[in-house]
Amino acid sequence: MHVSPHIPTLDDVANAAGVSTATVSRCLNEKQKVSPKTLSKVMEAVESLGYTPNFNARAMAAKQSHTIGAIIPTMENAIFARGLQAFQETLLEQGYNLLVSSSAYQPKLEAQQIRELVARGADGLLLIGYERDEAVYDYLARRGIPTVLAWASMPDKGHASVGFDNRASMRLLADRVIEMGHRRIAVISGITEGNDRAAGRLAGIQDSWQAHGFDLAALPVIETPYETENGAAAFAELMQADEKPTVVMCGNDVLASGAISKARDLDLDVPGDVSVTGFDDIELAKHVFPALTTVHVPHRQMGRIAAQSLVGLIEKRSEKVTRQLDVSIVMRASLTSI
Amino acid sequence: MHVSPHIPTLDDVANAAGVSTATVSRCLNEKQKVSPKTLSKVMEAVESLGYTPNFNARAMAAKQSHTIGAIIPTMENAIFARGLQAFQETLLEQGYNLLVSSSAYQPKLEAQQIRELVARGADGLLLIGYERDEAVYDYLARRGIPTVLAWASMPDKGHASVGFDNRASMRLLADRVIEMGHRRIAVISGITEGNDRAAGRLAGIQDSWQAHGFDLAALPVIETPYETENGAAAFAELMQADEKPTVVMCGNDVLASGAISKARDLDLDVPGDVSVTGFDDIELAKHVFPALTTVHVPHRQMGRIAAQSLVGLIEKRSEKVTRQLDVSIVMRASLTSI
Repeated sequence: MHVSPHIPTLDDVANAAGVSTATVSRCLNEKQKVSPKTLSKVMEAVESLGYTPNFNARAMAAKQSHTIGAIIPTMENAIFARGLQAFQETLLEQGYNLLVSSSAYQPKLEAQQIRELVARGADGLLLIGYERDEAVYDYLARRGIPTVLAWASMPDKGHASVGFDNRASMRLLADRVIEMGHRRIAVISGITEGNDRAAGRLAGIQDSWQAHGFDLAALPVIETPYETENGAAAFAELMQADEKPTVVMCGNDVLASGAISKARDLDLDVPGDVSVTGFDDIELAKHVFPALTTVHVPHRQMGRIAAQSLVGLIEKRSEKVTRQLDVSIVMRASLTSI
Repeated sequence: MHVSPHIPTLDDVANAAGVSTATVSRCLNEKQKVSPKTLSKVMEAVESLGYTPNFNARAMAAKQSHTIGAIIPTMENAIFARGLQAFQETLLEQGYNLLVSSSAYQPKLEAQQIRELVARGADGLLLIGYERDEAVYDYLARRGIPTVLAWASMPDKGHASVGFDNRASMRLLADRVIEMGHRRIAVISGITEGNDRAAGRLAGIQDSWQAHGFDLAALPVIETPYETENGAAAFAELMQADEKPTVVMCGNDVLASGAISKARDLDLDVPGDVSVTGFDDIELAKHVFPALTTVHVPHRQMGRIAAQSLVGLIEKRSEKVTRQLDVSIVMRASLTSI
């Protein structure tokens, strides 16, 4: 036999705290209108009864759930970890909770998760990059869900975003590599299809290569998903060429870390025999040996600004803006002149 | 002026697909009872209209939201990343979506996030470790929310869980270290208060130390939060002792990676001057140099079994079980005999 547990109601909380249900509701939705003493009395009752505000009733009363959804392409490898952590910290300061989904780099899954988060009452969304079906943007507009895009910045697209120019940033690094004398460059890129960040980074290397008067056909490129194992395998393949590269430029630090590990397996000295570069400056970049020359992305700043922008949109205090952040090149031991 | 967007209803979908609303509802909640042709027709209409099933209506119709909540202590450093990724993959195969919150190792925030996920209709929860207020367990029991604990395993506590014995696992490694001749051990532990995994790992080293007849007072321990920077600082402090340790055992790979980086800064050879060990075998462990000797945790297996257990509980196909997984010691270059 199954006995349904008694689910505490707003009335139960009001009775326990000795206040009206309207006061309980204010404590849950408009804290600033309640005295600290009343708030503490009511929240104690909420706590001890295990009361959970009913989602719809609360959303209708406050027109807000104070929950933000974020969908990132992957939870592995900490690529998005630090930015997301800063995003959450800033949200918490502003009284918002964060729910995160991971789309495994699958646009269909992302579209489904967007609906799911909207169905669960998310006040706003953080999405990574620009590249997704127009239908998704239409859906968000129809539903009136404030959305901020991050990790990319394309001001002419008109979406609210906080990111950086992946293409120009990687071009900066490629220019530096070529200025240091490298003429045999090989590239390990992330999968560019459906990933505007990966596509931008590859294009940045190609821009620099062509601007220096070289032929695109002479620039070997392997595209592979962002996993260290894949970086290792691609590196081994590139080093089998008759004309071995003097530098392997990687689409991110995860691929570059795999390349560096594989170089050690192959008894190749980095950077003596071959230089390796990354992108992102995640934790890993400092801890591989030799440490990675990479493009430093201001993850925490990006996360904080994304949170502020999104809350501003939700609370109708600000307009859609595109914030483009500066990156910098971090020179570490994995890149040398030739 | 603000014009409310038209939000598509179940009727709109039924009209567009030329079926009854009951059929639409079946397509959304009991796919197996619908012909593939009808399902595809209805899902196309859902897609093109941008229909989102109303959370409460759907929950009432299906008695399930097909959404699982997970609360992990941190999204940084990828400590939980691989297990969580496997957890999500298995959930997706079974038709469940995952929403993740990060509690920043704060019990109060975790308690609040548990309520939030329940309020948003989560069918079940994944939580990390056992140590939390009894009131939280009472709340989950009253609400009848199936919950599986992971990353720890304490069979006599009676909770459904999938994990490993942190204490016995770390003891295995400490026994090995002592058998290899080390008599001057120092420990960099995570913060043990409120973290049963960290406390268990420290206790495992102490168990081994005492079992070998040594005095606890002669075992230096620094507790510090799981960040590479903290591991580096603690390592520097431990190496200032008059009797320098011959091995520094770290509570996880993040602390150990920081220790190894700091050793390089201090011109100390690992393992020539001092050995370093970790715990978890996250990606980082393979890529630091020298690679870390550590305790391998079967992250993906743990994530998969946790998902299967939780879905089994939600669908009332299985009972609460405690699954204790085997770990193994991975010997890599950072530990040597003396």
